[in-house]
Amino acid sequence: MKPVRRKLDTRNGRVDLSHGSGGRAMAQLIADIFHDAFDNDWLRRNDDQATLDAQEGRLVMTTDGYVVSPLFFPGGDIGSLSVHGTINDIAMAGATPKYLSASFIIEEGFALGDLKRIAQSMGDASRAAGVPIVTGDTKVVERGKADGVFISTAGVGVLPDGLSLSSDGARPGDAVLVSGSMGDHGVAIMSRRENLEFGVEILSDSAALHGLTAAMIGAAGGALRVMRDPTRGGLAAALNEIAHQSNVGFTINEELIPVKPQVAAACEFLGLDPLYVANEGKLMAICAPQATETLLNAMRAHPLGREAALIGHVVEDERNFVEMTTRFGGGRIVDWLSGEQLPRIC
Amino acid sequence: MKPVRRKLDTRNGRVDLSHGSGGRAMAQLIADIFHDAFDNDWLRRNDDQATLDAQEGRLVMTTDGYVVSPLFFPGGDIGSLSVHGTINDIAMAGATPKYLSASFIIEEGFALGDLKRIAQSMGDASRAAGVPIVTGDTKVVERGKADGVFISTAGVGVLPDGLSLSSDGARPGDAVLVSGSMGDHGVAIMSRRENLEFGVEILSDSAALHGLTAAMIGAAGGALRVMRDPTRGGLAAALNEIAHQSNVGFTINEELIPVKPQVAAACEFLGLDPLYVANEGKLMAICAPQATETLLNAMRAHPLGREAALIGHVVEDERNFVEMTTRFGGGRIVDWLSGEQLPRIC
Repeated sequence: MKPVRRKLDTRNGRVDLSHGSGGRAMAQLIADIFHDAFDNDWLRRNDDQATLDAQEGRLVMTTDGYVVSPLFFPGGDIGSLSVHGTINDIAMAGATPKYLSASFIIEEGFALGDLKRIAQSMGDASRAAGVPIVTGDTKVVERGKADGVFISTAGVGVLPDGLSLSSDGARPGDAVLVSGSMGDHGVAIMSRRENLEFGVEILSDSAALHGLTAAMIGAAGGALRVMRDPTRGGLAAALNEIAHQSNVGFTINEELIPVKPQVAAACEFLGLDPLYVANEGKLMAICAPQATETLLNAMRAHPLGREAALIGHVVEDERNFVEMTTRFGGGRIVDWLSGEQLPRIC
Repeated sequence: MKPVRRKLDTRNGRVDLSHGSGGRAMAQLIADIFHDAFDNDWLRRNDDQATLDAQEGRLVMTTDGYVVSPLFFPGGDIGSLSVHGTINDIAMAGATPKYLSASFIIEEGFALGDLKRIAQSMGDASRAAGVPIVTGDTKVVERGKADGVFISTAGVGVLPDGLSLSSDGARPGDAVLVSGSMGDHGVAIMSRRENLEFGVEILSDSAALHGLTAAMIGAAGGALRVMRDPTRGGLAAALNEIAHQSNVGFTINEELIPVKPQVAAACEFLGLDPLYVANEGKLMAICAPQATETLLNAMRAHPLGREAALIGHVVEDERNFVEMTTRFGGGRIVDWLSGEQLPRIC
């Protein structure tokens, strides 16, 4: 008598506490939803861990929790986001992402169909990026003790010898580049949350950036000092963090920062500043001045960097200020927000 | 003007949404609570990922989500548990755990003092085990959208050449050993949850098992076939999973399975079967018959294996049954529970 393999009812079924209890119901949920979507030999072994090949080079490890609300949004969902975001954190170190893990915390009563859709989207994102999800875990909490589903992904990558990028690497005179328009992800989430329409649908920019970063490293090599994906807190938070960690300042020019017209309009309507709004498929890079053109060209030659732009420079500044020349020619300090701007944006 | 470094109020303060927003409040929470507790150079770099040494040998990767309720229980808390559980999943593959990551999902309003206590406990567990927490992430969700704090940890370890343990490795004739008494963790949680007292306080067995597994591998080497930590679903779920994955059966003897008298009494009172109750500091091992004595002696020589016992054998069985001789000499099938027994036990 083998365990009954009745298919999960992903049309009308819902997650219940038995799906997190370690018994047969959990085994079935994992097989029918996660193994089916992620589809690889590591998962099929059904071990509590994955045994992977030996790797040449230093390891890079990262983790992120995803609590985005709503779970589905224009341009993506929590599943694809949880793959892209973690891949990007590995890529920003200059490393090649190799493997992902996924931990699901699911609220009792969550629709199995939605869980399947999220898992399929994760699987698609993982295959498209060439970074498999090799191990995972599922927990279920009582109704009202979570909000649909939360996903924590971790990632492991490999960093070739000789390359070293870190947030303390910016030097006065360095150039500051961004790979494209700012604020798309956050505004896509907010407009779905507030049920707003702005004529043109605003899509999240959620994307895996390791192809772009590989091209950038190939072109600029050691002249590349820092890469950072400006997620929560947007470009403003990323610049302020690096200013402190590298003990420098920044001067940036508002006119040079790409922002889509519909995103600018939505931000004005919502009372947001696009510099503080999260991106999930864009990066900021800091490079030695002589490499600026080479790096810009390499970025623009990649599909995810077509609108790359030079937006400013690193300056000596013990106060670690980020100063911006505004579109009207004035100056202002781009400070960190001390409070919260957009909760659960990723 | 450096960012204000007023200390967090960990006596009366509470987590608010700004602590998850990517701004200055989040930077302070991370510095004052997590960096302070985990204390290592990787975290002090303040990057979104950790760059680690190159590793010799195959990598092993795992992740687990922790949603235990209550957060503090006799013998541990969600912090120490989240370190031990993930280390153990690495150790069960025969690998040496090297690095951990931690993703926190925190409910708005959660007491900063409790968060600090949990982080300190994680830091203590990590230092005691010699496995640092090298990178992390913090998200905050609105009040009522989570339950205090959830933690997902991931782990990376290294597996020496030649060793290969997997749940499909059990062979008829092999011996089945456990490292000590069953059911302690689950009963400790349940008695705290139900506010029960049983004369002697029942403590969770939560512990990192990689020292024990290293000793076992040293003693038995290739004669060791499978190791598994029987967490959710207890020994019963672990045996049933391995029976299916190895396509074998088991015969075990109830009288030989160590269960503490107070745990047995509590189980009777609570209507639980200790074979189905989670453990967090015990393992089950399957080895070739000729290595049984050597392995048992090695386990008993380690502080976490003093009460190790031979509890049964692997048999040929196409039905993949786990059959148990009961204390009264009868026989019964130890099946998987299809439903849930103890939600949020880990």
